[in-house]
Amino acid sequence: MDIRDLRLPSASTLATTMTFAALLNDTFLKACWRQATDHTPLWLMRQAGRYLPEYCATRARAGSFMGLATNVDFATEVTLQPLARYPLDAAILFSDILTVPDAMGLGLSFAQGEGPHFAHVVRDEAAVKALAVPDMDKLRYVFDAVTAIRHALNGRVPLIGFSGSPWTLACYMVEGGGSDDYRLVKQMLYSRPDLMHRVLTINADAVAAYLNAQIEAGAQAVMVFDSWGGVLADGAFQTFSLAYTQRVLQQLKRAHAGVDIPRIVFTKGGGLWLQQMAQLDCEVLGLDWTVNLGEARRLVGGQVGGPGKALQGNIDPMVLFAQPAQIAEQVRGVLESFGKPHTDPTTTGPTHIFNLGHGISQHTPPEHVAALVETVHQYSRAQRHAPV
Amino acid sequence: MDIRDLRLPSASTLATTMTFAALLNDTFLKACWRQATDHTPLWLMRQAGRYLPEYCATRARAGSFMGLATNVDFATEVTLQPLARYPLDAAILFSDILTVPDAMGLGLSFAQGEGPHFAHVVRDEAAVKALAVPDMDKLRYVFDAVTAIRHALNGRVPLIGFSGSPWTLACYMVEGGGSDDYRLVKQMLYSRPDLMHRVLTINADAVAAYLNAQIEAGAQAVMVFDSWGGVLADGAFQTFSLAYTQRVLQQLKRAHAGVDIPRIVFTKGGGLWLQQMAQLDCEVLGLDWTVNLGEARRLVGGQVGGPGKALQGNIDPMVLFAQPAQIAEQVRGVLESFGKPHTDPTTTGPTHIFNLGHGISQHTPPEHVAALVETVHQYSRAQRHAPV
Repeated sequence: MDIRDLRLPSASTLATTMTFAALLNDTFLKACWRQATDHTPLWLMRQAGRYLPEYCATRARAGSFMGLATNVDFATEVTLQPLARYPLDAAILFSDILTVPDAMGLGLSFAQGEGPHFAHVVRDEAAVKALAVPDMDKLRYVFDAVTAIRHALNGRVPLIGFSGSPWTLACYMVEGGGSDDYRLVKQMLYSRPDLMHRVLTINADAVAAYLNAQIEAGAQAVMVFDSWGGVLADGAFQTFSLAYTQRVLQQLKRAHAGVDIPRIVFTKGGGLWLQQMAQLDCEVLGLDWTVNLGEARRLVGGQVGGPGKALQGNIDPMVLFAQPAQIAEQVRGVLESFGKPHTDPTTTGPTHIFNLGHGISQHTPPEHVAALVETVHQYSRAQRHAPV
Repeated sequence: MDIRDLRLPSASTLATTMTFAALLNDTFLKACWRQATDHTPLWLMRQAGRYLPEYCATRARAGSFMGLATNVDFATEVTLQPLARYPLDAAILFSDILTVPDAMGLGLSFAQGEGPHFAHVVRDEAAVKALAVPDMDKLRYVFDAVTAIRHALNGRVPLIGFSGSPWTLACYMVEGGGSDDYRLVKQMLYSRPDLMHRVLTINADAVAAYLNAQIEAGAQAVMVFDSWGGVLADGAFQTFSLAYTQRVLQQLKRAHAGVDIPRIVFTKGGGLWLQQMAQLDCEVLGLDWTVNLGEARRLVGGQVGGPGKALQGNIDPMVLFAQPAQIAEQVRGVLESFGKPHTDPTTTGPTHIFNLGHGISQHTPPEHVAALVETVHQYSRAQRHAPV
């Protein structure tokens, strides 16, 4: 189908007419656009999550993960919880990367303490043929949550919307859940590439419609999580992951309500393909901890006044199990690895958004996160005033 | 302790006086030394394994994995099984990467269908202080198996000995088994680097003594499996994995009984650090499927007549779940990715040893392996005679 035929849900139309509070902290968005900021902005993947006791309390009231994610009030509440504890520079919608295949009818669930599980899997020609871009109305709970969170934030920090990448969704749709070898999805890829391309095309068009609806509902930036791109072989990554991430990006709205919407792509384990990812039609590339930030800046970060990608990442979340002084030392190391960001307010240049290289562990002591946040803000301010 | 004080076990002394049959197929060893060969040699990680019904039958007789690995007759039998099916160019000792910590007294076991498990873990200062390089006599079953296999091979192909890397052993010793986040070992690394360095120093000296004893017993090449080096952050990898792999390599015997012994290092997920790994004191670097072989050749493979590393790898083992014609196409793609190997018999130059990028899956259809082996041999011969 032609993506231009997709009707956006009415919730989005409503959102376009809404007025949100003016943004008070635009550090994150400026860094996305490679504009100079007075500190390195930060947020943490999975910042609203099980390491926070208040999150666990809300989840207990909701009864289940999907009960939490599909309830606008609960989703709003947990999205704001980490911001009440830490001066983070962005909020991210509380949801899951697998809402789109759930809306396709595959039946997503999370058993207590387990990863995602699909009741229906997509392993044969008949199941692939039955797939279609879902009616975005089935995802209205997400768009409603975006709008509600945006209001609740009241302009404090920008709100990031997100989705899994077409390939990452396909992994779960074929495997039915997590995997340690991706045997079933790779078997389809290598033995029935025609079916795999069909799944990925549908996923890409669905993800694009989904992210556009999040933008219409109030998301101020969007991120594509290619969590499993790094399990692919060189060659297969470009054909089956990167090309479909690009298909998503090409369909995304560039601006909404007069404001440009930056796009972030994060391929876990994708460091070897950074120069190819630099060709993506997006503003920011996320990096995991295996990547040397200085080298990434040299390869894709660009020069002052020239084009390039903003870089997001990349501390190992396991650093948060060390003691606060050790965490601070590791944080300084990551900031030094990127080097002094550009400071010219009149033009664009290399910028860094501090983050983890993967989601925060549920076992993380919350007070250790405070040490990380404080060090990022303090040290990155000092770094800007240091002699080159 | 000083490694020079280590007494090699008497089994090794015996082996030095043994005579083995002359080697009939030296293609693998020549490729390790970057010498021209008439085809690309191949062997498969975990080639003696559960995908072979005859292996499962032997394992059933042995009662357990450790029963299989510690019995010289069983270990010899299963090492030779894949060679009876396929014209592979090397044999690899049937054993486990974790025999060294088992000999340290940690109590290795494998429950049916499960990964490795240690009865005793190394998580605190007391446990670290209690660690020592084990008496190599506790690993005599391995050295005896090496000698027995070498005799049973009767010169057909060379025999590769191996061990886990110091870091990879440490992962299992601290975690007690497999892990999906390496939280405990990374917690020690980030919060008690002094303890981690002590564990790694002992591991490195133990692995060096272990590999030297395998060489004395008859191993014609040795390989260090750094299976979990790729989970480390940039910086931590160099400090906690690469440096200790180098500590192993520096202590290894360069030759035995007048024959040089090539050394292979394989860091799964280490593609980003290839240029740093090129500085290792070894002959061959193993690569997983995320690495572009042509790019790796350009970076570390060297020129004809110049120094460089031989490259080993790197097809995705999941390719073996496609149909034979599709497997052949993927194999040709990997050979083409490396490009035409050098063919000058008078000097050294870039060489490739075909392998998987990881161990073969237990679910692999054995007849699919035959398609891979046949294509590697046929196509790589043709490749050498093609115009440049």
